[in-house]
Amino acid sequence: MVTVANKAGLEGISAGESAICQIDEEKGGLQYRGYRVEDLAEQASFEEVAYLLLMGELPSHQELQAWKRELDYAGFLPDPIPQVLRLVPATAHLMDTLRTGVSLLGMMDSEANNPSFEANVHKATRLIARLPLILSLACQSKQDKHQPISAGTCAENLLYLLTGTRDKAKAKELEVSLILYAEHEFNASTFAARVTASTWADLYGGVTSAIATLKGPSHGGANEAVAEMLVKIERPEKAKAWVLAALDRKERVMGFGHRVLKLEDPRSVIMKRRAKALSENMGEMRWYEMAEIMDQTMQEEKGLLPNLDFYTAVVYLLLKLPIKTYTPIFVTSRVAGWCAHIIEQQANNRIMRPRATYIGPPTREYLPIQHRSSRGTIGPGISPPDDPVLN
Amino acid sequence: MVTVANKAGLEGISAGESAICQIDEEKGGLQYRGYRVEDLAEQASFEEVAYLLLMGELPSHQELQAWKRELDYAGFLPDPIPQVLRLVPATAHLMDTLRTGVSLLGMMDSEANNPSFEANVHKATRLIARLPLILSLACQSKQDKHQPISAGTCAENLLYLLTGTRDKAKAKELEVSLILYAEHEFNASTFAARVTASTWADLYGGVTSAIATLKGPSHGGANEAVAEMLVKIERPEKAKAWVLAALDRKERVMGFGHRVLKLEDPRSVIMKRRAKALSENMGEMRWYEMAEIMDQTMQEEKGLLPNLDFYTAVVYLLLKLPIKTYTPIFVTSRVAGWCAHIIEQQANNRIMRPRATYIGPPTREYLPIQHRSSRGTIGPGISPPDDPVLN
Repeated sequence: MVTVANKAGLEGISAGESAICQIDEEKGGLQYRGYRVEDLAEQASFEEVAYLLLMGELPSHQELQAWKRELDYAGFLPDPIPQVLRLVPATAHLMDTLRTGVSLLGMMDSEANNPSFEANVHKATRLIARLPLILSLACQSKQDKHQPISAGTCAENLLYLLTGTRDKAKAKELEVSLILYAEHEFNASTFAARVTASTWADLYGGVTSAIATLKGPSHGGANEAVAEMLVKIERPEKAKAWVLAALDRKERVMGFGHRVLKLEDPRSVIMKRRAKALSENMGEMRWYEMAEIMDQTMQEEKGLLPNLDFYTAVVYLLLKLPIKTYTPIFVTSRVAGWCAHIIEQQANNRIMRPRATYIGPPTREYLPIQHRSSRGTIGPGISPPDDPVLN
Repeated sequence: MVTVANKAGLEGISAGESAICQIDEEKGGLQYRGYRVEDLAEQASFEEVAYLLLMGELPSHQELQAWKRELDYAGFLPDPIPQVLRLVPATAHLMDTLRTGVSLLGMMDSEANNPSFEANVHKATRLIARLPLILSLACQSKQDKHQPISAGTCAENLLYLLTGTRDKAKAKELEVSLILYAEHEFNASTFAARVTASTWADLYGGVTSAIATLKGPSHGGANEAVAEMLVKIERPEKAKAWVLAALDRKERVMGFGHRVLKLEDPRSVIMKRRAKALSENMGEMRWYEMAEIMDQTMQEEKGLLPNLDFYTAVVYLLLKLPIKTYTPIFVTSRVAGWCAHIIEQQANNRIMRPRATYIGPPTREYLPIQHRSSRGTIGPGISPPDDPVLN
């Protein structure tokens, strides 16, 4: 007996229980382990949030310091990761480099195949410390001139590694985005990580699957697309006409709408406020003004609200982060959520093995090859990407 | 509104439509694109079956020859794959090497991010040609002394690359297992590939996820576990007592039972027959006799039937394939099914984004870090692997 869902893509189907993230789609509420993202974004550090996701509780000062020491201690790339990254072409897609790098990290970690909670937290800690280093090495045309800042926060390090900038105020803006990107229930990449973990595959395998999945333009790839759009539009005066023309051409305007949060994305509200304040502080209103006009036009024309990617792109443009690093930055943050989900999946595991609804040919008789004739071109045509949905 | 499934692991839930594989769980029937696996296993080549899965129809003689030429042409590893494989430790888990190797192949393929049907079939063809080479290189302590046999079949090549044996009759036994391993609807690894592909991530990303997932001992890892068990039992006379003792200790006996095929696994019936004939031809009945006693004991004691992994292990032991290559061999075959599913997913795509049933803490107030106290050890305990289920 196979139960068929009402909608494709498992929309509205619970694929399991989770104590990590609560989404209240009616009220646009979003909580990590019971804490409102608004509180976490404004008051907590990314490290506290990552600890909360992994361990289930916010750390005490002492616990946080101990964990930060572990992060510092793990802040290097073991051999042969740097050598391998030097062998791959500089033109490689950064998400492919992260996918390969994490898969390699798994091969070098003696705890890789230990599924205990302690070992998995160690691995998660190493990944949080090392993903920014892989990204930085992959970006810098094969020279690793930047080293992490000693005792710097994750956000300070990341900003420094990717732009050379040491600036606590700017790093805080990046940090807010990391907190908001860190977790989002059973989004596609997290779900892929859980499917992988459900066979008792190792945590690195789960994160490799998640990175492979986040690469897609309908998922993580969306934040880069927003920035490219803003760069293309160039000036606020052109924003409204650009949106209207795109809608006329039935093109998708990136950064709007969400599969689950149909009313409002609370993360977008926070990022909009941060983007505005940062633009004012820096005296550079261009990207924000452009974004606000597009936002308003999309609400008027399509009734669609911006998602997290939209105003995050404004902040990242102001911080002069290279656009090609936006989805990889998402990885450096969401890895905390992925690892929390892998740990949770294996704590109460059942292999993820759904069924398919068969729509193929009925039983047919086998015809030996000498009796078959050629049919010319066969195989399905592939339609263009469907509506990108941020998760 | 979230619909909660009756059972965990998406059991019995259709996650989408598919025209590739039909499983009739009542009658134990299994068909690829409408053809019974019994007919395919006995009459078709692995290449014909892979073509059928990818293209939707069995090839004519001319089509098959053209595709085999493409496979031959792709039968080398592009730089820097061999160099990278020489950098990783010889002790690395072969499934990790395949996972990393496929992720790297994606970085070296100029068609990687082209989602057209034609480009995806090219990539699938390259993966079918190259996965055995990655496996062979990883196995041979870093010397690639074996090259593929010119104009050899996939099975002949694989047997030669892994054992140095050139023997058409033995290769046919390996080929039957490849045909039976090639596809099995929405099993966990295939499902992971589809989740990854559903974000419009690339085909290499989908296959990387699938390999990461197949590694788990509850999925692909089971065939190695069966062989290790047979080697440990040593002699047919000890088989019954060994099974009874394992059941007494509440241990799992690997290679029995199936999530979907509860009555009979038609693939196991085929492999049992092949294993018996091969044992007789080779005059080495030990593994088969041992397996048959275990099979009978498990039916008597638990009412469980063997799955595909069980008698396949007997055939692989007779072929002198190294046990650590069994799950990787599964990869070299299932890659055809994975690619067919990735192509099908993207031909009618919707992002796979289920929901979770929230079971975590209710909304709580944020307490600044200076007001928090340490709680000592936290985090969930991890239970041992659940029942391994072959898919």
